[in-house]
Amino acid sequence: MKSHGYVAHDKKSPLVPFSFDRRDPGPNDVVVDIAYCGVCHSDIHQVRDEWNNAIYPMVPGHEIVGYVAKAGSSVKKFKEGDRAAVGVMVDSCRECENCRAGVECYCAKGMVGTYNARDYKGELMFGGYANNIVVDERYTHTLSPKLDMAAAAPLLCAGITTYSPLRHWKVGPGKRVGVVGLGGLGHMGLKFAHSLGAHVVQFTTSASKIDDAKKLGADEVVVTKDPDAMAKFAGSLDFVLDCVSAPHDINAYLDLLRLDGTLCSVGLPEQPLSVAPFAILANRRSLAGSMIGGMPETQEMLDYCADHGIVSDIELTPIDKLAEAYDRVVKSDVKYRFVIDMATLPKS
Amino acid sequence: MKSHGYVAHDKKSPLVPFSFDRRDPGPNDVVVDIAYCGVCHSDIHQVRDEWNNAIYPMVPGHEIVGYVAKAGSSVKKFKEGDRAAVGVMVDSCRECENCRAGVECYCAKGMVGTYNARDYKGELMFGGYANNIVVDERYTHTLSPKLDMAAAAPLLCAGITTYSPLRHWKVGPGKRVGVVGLGGLGHMGLKFAHSLGAHVVQFTTSASKIDDAKKLGADEVVVTKDPDAMAKFAGSLDFVLDCVSAPHDINAYLDLLRLDGTLCSVGLPEQPLSVAPFAILANRRSLAGSMIGGMPETQEMLDYCADHGIVSDIELTPIDKLAEAYDRVVKSDVKYRFVIDMATLPKS
Repeated sequence: MKSHGYVAHDKKSPLVPFSFDRRDPGPNDVVVDIAYCGVCHSDIHQVRDEWNNAIYPMVPGHEIVGYVAKAGSSVKKFKEGDRAAVGVMVDSCRECENCRAGVECYCAKGMVGTYNARDYKGELMFGGYANNIVVDERYTHTLSPKLDMAAAAPLLCAGITTYSPLRHWKVGPGKRVGVVGLGGLGHMGLKFAHSLGAHVVQFTTSASKIDDAKKLGADEVVVTKDPDAMAKFAGSLDFVLDCVSAPHDINAYLDLLRLDGTLCSVGLPEQPLSVAPFAILANRRSLAGSMIGGMPETQEMLDYCADHGIVSDIELTPIDKLAEAYDRVVKSDVKYRFVIDMATLPKS
Repeated sequence: MKSHGYVAHDKKSPLVPFSFDRRDPGPNDVVVDIAYCGVCHSDIHQVRDEWNNAIYPMVPGHEIVGYVAKAGSSVKKFKEGDRAAVGVMVDSCRECENCRAGVECYCAKGMVGTYNARDYKGELMFGGYANNIVVDERYTHTLSPKLDMAAAAPLLCAGITTYSPLRHWKVGPGKRVGVVGLGGLGHMGLKFAHSLGAHVVQFTTSASKIDDAKKLGADEVVVTKDPDAMAKFAGSLDFVLDCVSAPHDINAYLDLLRLDGTLCSVGLPEQPLSVAPFAILANRRSLAGSMIGGMPETQEMLDYCADHGIVSDIELTPIDKLAEAYDRVVKSDVKYRFVIDMATLPKS
């Protein structure tokens, strides 16, 4: 199947228009005409080969929403014209314990990423900075007409990455929850934790974000450079969602946890986390990780967002301004996610 | 009250005989005539000021068993002549959330250690390398006559430190559990995990320990220097109890955990743990800590040991051979705990 989009040919050059082939859709596949695709910070890391795993040519993008252009003969969830959404993964082994449990993101064989990845046949996968995509319906989600489509795109990565741990660690009424960092991930974590009924304390390095954090649902905001403000929360939180990818002192946040509290890191830091043994011995604390979410939970999250009016705060960008958008993401100069308007993709 | 024991006057000199005063017993106190006291590796760290927190003169010892010499007028659990046991802590605030929940080891005010610590009045506490000790009955445990007394002493630290996390993380039938390290802590962890009905995999750096590990209850033994043997267990364990205090690659053990598995560190490493983010993101793993156990659980553990015939494997030492015992502990040349026979303590 013919597709076209924007590509990185190497780690230095700007993304440019590109025509390419995708597999022809089979009976279980849907072809999604892409309307919007979010710009995830991990797109930039991978385009620039900052994780040392780049495969070029690379068409990034894994926060994909659009309309079904074609539904294979065996497809049950979709018909032509339906809204559809695709996230960070497009296949998994489907047979391991984790796949069978619906947490395909933890597939023992290794999930197939939406881009910068090869499928189990070795074919290179191209992502959502494109006019269309072919995905098995098992890895494609329905999208309620109640959701603003552009603002829903980031739910497919930033949304599920924060929703899943908040649900797994049972964040809700009566729980005191910290959210560290107020960017693409953090602002979704804050919205979800607030919506789930927890008392939410937002931690941010920047005093300029206090008002925004309160508008997004924070009950309290702590500027992390203030040691007295930090000390006030020592041993007081049930759960901390750490959305920061930059190097930071994780022990300062572990210290905030009460008995049996968990700090879950979702920020994909590049450096190892340096954990002081006493920071976890005290209060029998846990440091955990979490990686996107399984397919059933991703659908649950999208339905929850439709029911509760939750979307990402976004700034639309035309695709020919990607270089500028990338620079602003790196500077944290966006509230809080760029989304590419695929109507701006040149016809080719 | 007059006491005498062995003391460290500084971090270099050998321990020597010492006479000192303890507080006079109050109505809630028991005076325990000490029969045996275990030699914990942390005694050596503290005597030698390797944790930079030594208070001299220091009478070490927090694995204490003996007989009640005097029970205060309000004491309910003990009468004169009863067996009694004292562990790592002798007081806590009794008012915080954690104390009220019976996990006094996580006291928000900070527990009062049995030695190398000051009580809330500022009085220096002296430990169990002595003829007797005065402790509030709330922090004193009953000890079944079914237990070999000398071999029961290490239960008060090595025992509860391993029992508590195994119970908290619900180790039992159907669970696959790893125990890392086969020393004072590890051999108790192995015995408990086996007794609780789990399938236990013992990890050791030393092929010479394979037979011993199997005798102590290991279903399988992995020599950790063999990468193929380690790889065989990747993603397969529900829980890992890490009893190693020496620097080691914790990510190699995190990688052994299946979905939602936890690695609990109880070895009190001196250096920060370097955690690769992907090692916890994969399989939504947790790295946790645990510190001894609360008073109710310590009693539960002692009763469990009496019911299941579990004690420590020990080597008795006279108190005037402490220097040699310390050297052998540091070389891991003991199976698996030294216990001081307090009958060898010179009279006054």
